[in-house]
Amino acid sequence: MKNTVTFLPDNISIVVDRGTNLLEAALAAGVHINASCGGQGLCGKCRVLVEAGEVDSKRTEKISKQEYDQGWRQACTSLVLSDCTVRIPPESRGAKRLKAQKLDMGKADRKIASLKTKPLAEGWVFDPLAIKVPVQLAPPTLNDNVSDLTRLSLGLKQQHDIENLSVDLRCLKAMPKILRSADWNVTATLMPPLEPEAILSEGAKSAPLRLVRLEPGDTSEFNLAVALDIGTTTVCAELIDLNMGKVLAEAAEYNRQAQYGDDVISRITYAQKPDGKQKLQSLVVSSINQVVDELVEQTNTSKKNISCIASAANTTMTHLLLGLETRYIRETPYVPAANFMPAVYASDIGIDVPDCVEFYSFPAVASYVGGDIVSGILSSGVFQKEQLTLYIDIGTNGEIVLGNRDWLVCAACSMGPAFEGGGIQYGMRAEPGAIEGFHINPLTLEPMLITVERKRPRGICGSGLISILAELLSACVIDRNGKFAHDLPSDRIREGRFGWEYVVTRAQESATRSDIVITEVDIENLIRAKAALFAGCLTLLESLSLTFDELDRVIIAGAFGRYINIENGKRIGLFPDIPDEKFQFLGNGSLIGSRLVCLCREMLDEVQRIAKMMTNIELSDNPSFMDKYMGALFLPHTDEHLFPDVSEYLRSTRQTVRSERKHPGEFQTRPPGRLGSQEYA
Amino acid sequence: MKNTVTFLPDNISIVVDRGTNLLEAALAAGVHINASCGGQGLCGKCRVLVEAGEVDSKRTEKISKQEYDQGWRQACTSLVLSDCTVRIPPESRGAKRLKAQKLDMGKADRKIASLKTKPLAEGWVFDPLAIKVPVQLAPPTLNDNVSDLTRLSLGLKQQHDIENLSVDLRCLKAMPKILRSADWNVTATLMPPLEPEAILSEGAKSAPLRLVRLEPGDTSEFNLAVALDIGTTTVCAELIDLNMGKVLAEAAEYNRQAQYGDDVISRITYAQKPDGKQKLQSLVVSSINQVVDELVEQTNTSKKNISCIASAANTTMTHLLLGLETRYIRETPYVPAANFMPAVYASDIGIDVPDCVEFYSFPAVASYVGGDIVSGILSSGVFQKEQLTLYIDIGTNGEIVLGNRDWLVCAACSMGPAFEGGGIQYGMRAEPGAIEGFHINPLTLEPMLITVERKRPRGICGSGLISILAELLSACVIDRNGKFAHDLPSDRIREGRFGWEYVVTRAQESATRSDIVITEVDIENLIRAKAALFAGCLTLLESLSLTFDELDRVIIAGAFGRYINIENGKRIGLFPDIPDEKFQFLGNGSLIGSRLVCLCREMLDEVQRIAKMMTNIELSDNPSFMDKYMGALFLPHTDEHLFPDVSEYLRSTRQTVRSERKHPGEFQTRPPGRLGSQEYA
Repeated sequence: MKNTVTFLPDNISIVVDRGTNLLEAALAAGVHINASCGGQGLCGKCRVLVEAGEVDSKRTEKISKQEYDQGWRQACTSLVLSDCTVRIPPESRGAKRLKAQKLDMGKADRKIASLKTKPLAEGWVFDPLAIKVPVQLAPPTLNDNVSDLTRLSLGLKQQHDIENLSVDLRCLKAMPKILRSADWNVTATLMPPLEPEAILSEGAKSAPLRLVRLEPGDTSEFNLAVALDIGTTTVCAELIDLNMGKVLAEAAEYNRQAQYGDDVISRITYAQKPDGKQKLQSLVVSSINQVVDELVEQTNTSKKNISCIASAANTTMTHLLLGLETRYIRETPYVPAANFMPAVYASDIGIDVPDCVEFYSFPAVASYVGGDIVSGILSSGVFQKEQLTLYIDIGTNGEIVLGNRDWLVCAACSMGPAFEGGGIQYGMRAEPGAIEGFHINPLTLEPMLITVERKRPRGICGSGLISILAELLSACVIDRNGKFAHDLPSDRIREGRFGWEYVVTRAQESATRSDIVITEVDIENLIRAKAALFAGCLTLLESLSLTFDELDRVIIAGAFGRYINIENGKRIGLFPDIPDEKFQFLGNGSLIGSRLVCLCREMLDEVQRIAKMMTNIELSDNPSFMDKYMGALFLPHTDEHLFPDVSEYLRSTRQTVRSERKHPGEFQTRPPGRLGSQEYA
Repeated sequence: MKNTVTFLPDNISIVVDRGTNLLEAALAAGVHINASCGGQGLCGKCRVLVEAGEVDSKRTEKISKQEYDQGWRQACTSLVLSDCTVRIPPESRGAKRLKAQKLDMGKADRKIASLKTKPLAEGWVFDPLAIKVPVQLAPPTLNDNVSDLTRLSLGLKQQHDIENLSVDLRCLKAMPKILRSADWNVTATLMPPLEPEAILSEGAKSAPLRLVRLEPGDTSEFNLAVALDIGTTTVCAELIDLNMGKVLAEAAEYNRQAQYGDDVISRITYAQKPDGKQKLQSLVVSSINQVVDELVEQTNTSKKNISCIASAANTTMTHLLLGLETRYIRETPYVPAANFMPAVYASDIGIDVPDCVEFYSFPAVASYVGGDIVSGILSSGVFQKEQLTLYIDIGTNGEIVLGNRDWLVCAACSMGPAFEGGGIQYGMRAEPGAIEGFHINPLTLEPMLITVERKRPRGICGSGLISILAELLSACVIDRNGKFAHDLPSDRIREGRFGWEYVVTRAQESATRSDIVITEVDIENLIRAKAALFAGCLTLLESLSLTFDELDRVIIAGAFGRYINIENGKRIGLFPDIPDEKFQFLGNGSLIGSRLVCLCREMLDEVQRIAKMMTNIELSDNPSFMDKYMGALFLPHTDEHLFPDVSEYLRSTRQTVRSERKHPGEFQTRPPGRLGSQEYA
């Protein structure tokens, strides 16, 4: 059910789901409300007066009984229950403000790796990767003493019409005892072959189903899969009910390999040391084990109900996990051992699940375009549509895919882990306490911020960083080179231990009891990262004589917070300056593709097809790319023609801010563009 | 080149290969020459006078220079070099003799597991199970930086037209280093999938070739396979050159599991003890390792040149080797875990060969009709012909297959290991020193014997046992119940530690310096064994309303000595009493089938087809079988109608012997039937 919330005095309305948090509604509507504690009701700065309609909000100590009766509430702890009108008093807006400044939150906010995130791919049907079927067999007699395996096969044929069966030694070893201890009532787990695919031509289609597991009794109601996205920085996972076709839980942990370097290059370097390969292998496995433990704990189930694991990862992560040589991925000309990986037993590589759980690795395209991107292309449906699509995955590496159902080219550019929070002083993953939404009052320089799950701020995640950078730029706190203005009237801008910085959260309001800041060094890292990505996109397009205007669609994948904002992304030159409606956010496309394979076995073939279809273009030693990279080390870009609308907007906004700072009160009209009611969620 | 040897005074001729040993020629011709040392030139009893023609024979100390010049030779150390006439003096024939008694050696003598033994199957072409191809690859560049695996695949396609490749993780792990260390010149070993076959329907035909191994440089000239026959008693092996399609060497060793029992039942019992399964597994593996070591040593090659192993074995041996549960094979209703076995890495089950050598197990039909029989049916060609064939494999179990190209039924009967030398006091395998040919002078009761490789006698192998039993019967040394006559005028028949016995070799002539005897207990075991087999054949035929006369062919497989003799086999009731020309000896059919799969990969499909085609008939609890077994505990059988010719012969011969013993010299005519010149070899 939808409700309209109107914010006064600016009279800006937004349509939101009933139950939406009022502070989030304001952020989405582009209405500034001071809020520095992340939305947990502690700082008491976000007081608003509900003049009409109903919100659900308990009284807190920051609001007296009398005020509460008058309609005063804390926005961050109020939920919208009807259409309502909410007045923001001057003290909550910031005493000084640009009249009716809108935050331009965009429509494309999505939760990362969310249960709600859905693949954009179409036409797939629920046909799970592993099925479990109960079989009741007649005990053998002298007149019917076929082998246990044949008896089971015949039972599967008669009771489930399953023919053409193969079996593994591991499963066979346990079979006789299980059949008899279970009095011939068992459950068989069956999977299609996940074998190493034929490299040059299509694999055999008529391959038999594989009997991977036998359990006593009827356990068919417990049939789980783990979908994995193994990133350089983060291991994300979903637990999937293969009977219901439902995601039951999600979990994410830092990849413990990170102690040996932030990016794949440093991992590969470490892998070349004695025992380095083994150590890295066991570290990523321990991270996987941790997320699997969490999934199982969250859902109060048992690991023994897991039937299979599908894993999408970049090429280096896949190589390290399977124990393959990574050295030649790093050295020019960047050659992986293989793109198509054999399936293995999860337990054989150290994952703590039952013996016969299979581990499927998505195939890669090249050393720096891995299975995670193939998985993303699967989930994004790029390979199914006629539309010309640019797929951008922002992780530790930036990977770009351009194409449609007929052709796909791809490239990778080394962004560094900045947008994943790596190399950023207070960078973190989009987990509870991460600042994911940010706005600044350009005159008071006070922030409005929202954290993941509205926990006390602990750090800043990707979407928060994009917003902070864009907001500091719009508010003239930094210039187009990312350097701080030194003359601003706020102690939030200061010279810190590592140079100039902006205090996003003060110590008393942070979870860590120390200031959370963004530094000039952080900003340099972010600019280099976005420059690499943008230069990559531009090079790829130019190599096919295409321009940004010719794109029908841009799909953004990557693990951000919920509040990733197209406008902000454009303003810092991370995204191309094309109409908002062409953008789609996918979330963690790699994880979604991984889930998709678990839910629909036919996708295994599509995965193969996609990987074979993708043509990799090397950027690393490409002089044209280097030129474009240099040109992009500016906010949004040295070449304003590439960002016409954004440049216009920034020029006008920054001019307004500067002139208001010099002559307070003079400028009272709304800044141009992009305002008005909009639907949120 | 052939030569004719004529033996005087009986004027019996035989055609033999030039170079044949004279003693062997005599045995084959059915001419008795005393010979008690096994043919090694030590006893000096086999002196003959070469009256015409040429033999190659050095003078020994048993022959004076003068005698030598006159033409005296020792038969056992003489090789035929031309047509010749050889006189056997009375002292060498035995002072007393039945005039011109012929030994009826039959034509079907074959060497076991011999390099010369050929499959009877037809229409197969040389197309080895594993191929090795050298590939020269261009090093990667930035313009051509496909993965190592893809590069290799493309090379295989361009240089060898090999498409559709899959690869294993093991091979992939080593690939990057090997390619680079070898400067991109490598050799790939490729095999068809040996995967667990579909149980109910035919496997996928278009499955990709598998890259199982990569070696630096061009090693394609070294491409070996090991063909195995893993028997309960013996592990036999051949080393096969897969480039030449040639058997390079053969080796055999006792199965070390034998310390835990002679037959599969005792092995299974032991396997149920704690660690029993593991111990038996490692024992048979150590036997396999030993034969492989021997093969490699004999041919002065290296294990690293071995590409694959094919193994035919009975169901229990296969289960134990792969670590599968055997308990239910033993317990009624005799159910194996599986008949179709997954392929494994030889090194994974402990076999000491390179990591990526695959181990293929022949599929079985039932608990007591194993992969060895399927392999035998493959090598015998029974599945290809219209002729109604009875296939008999005499091992520790007797397995019988009846049928033709349209249908196959089979059964197993527990013979015990007697004909393999097990449970026989001086029983042994057909290896150097084993008595494999035997004849007795029915009046002097002195033996003529030939050992394998004419080494000093150490024991008696299967063919020797058959001959001894038949000869003792013909010579009235034992009666039709297998009991010794106690009144014979020779100290070779005596009461020993284990009851009555016949001294085959005296201590001074044996390798062990103790008497080699055959006891009444041995004879009981042999009679029980042959009774089980014959009853099995009869039951199988009767179940299809067939009689022995309707058989077009009887194929005898099993590891005997070279001198297995149809007549003797019939006389003791081991083989049916049908014309000699219907019999064919295959030798170790299981090993030959195993070799055939190595030489011709298409045979993998035939193997599957045969295994699925065979219908097993349970004899163990079959009352009709038990009746027939009881009836067969007699030499040749209680029912003389089943053995008309043999019974007639025995009656007449035994009567002659008895009357000659009573009235020496009275009987001087030849015994009836089956005599005359014949071709040998």
